Amino acid sequence: MLVHSVFFWLKKSAPKSARAALVKDCLKYLKTPSVKHLWAGPPAGTPERPVIDATYDVGLTVVFDDVKGHDAYQDHPDHLKFIERNKKHWQKVAVYDIE
Amino acid sequence: MLVHSVFFWLKKSAPKSARAALVKDCLKYLKTPSVKHLWAGPPAGTPERPVIDATYDVGLTVVFDDVKGHDAYQDHPDHLKFIERNKKHWQKVAVYDIE
Repeated sequence: MLVHSVFFWLKKSAPKSARAALVKDCLKYLKTPSVKHLWAGPPAGTPERPVIDATYDVGLTVVFDDVKGHDAYQDHPDHLKFIERNKKHWQKVAVYDIE
Repeated sequence: MLVHSVFFWLKKSAPKSARAALVKDCLKYLKTPSVKHLWAGPPAGTPERPVIDATYDVGLTVVFDDVKGHDAYQDHPDHLKFIERNKKHWQKVAVYDIE
């Protein structure tokens, strides 16, 4: 099992539509063959707590069987196209991979 | 859908066994009735990249149908027992909830 969590902070200059477009592109481009589960969305409406970081714009969670599945995803043309389409709006990206 | 991602940084003073014990307790105590998927583990062996944060000790990803499922989990006695058993070793906890 490998869980790949990504959090995107968009630039202040990004259009208002960029957040929804990023979620849509996650769902459209990133379900490549080695992906077992994929979810993407903005911060949830869970009750505020000091430990919760809700400063990002979009979160993405992708689950693979193993590191090999993750590596195939990273190199997949649809993943590269996703980056190419969206990266101009990214201020910061944080990635956490657990296994 | 609600994806609840938690990253734990342990205190320098925590025993060497604390990391494995935390993963074990995630798997033992946190699969409460509203949980659809649950994974826990240390940082993975994915290739190093500047965007990857691998400074934490344990990551936990829990998936629920909705915020209501998440809230039931937060209040579940087994979740509270998990916190009680492990929190003494936590230096920092970061939570990201997406929906």
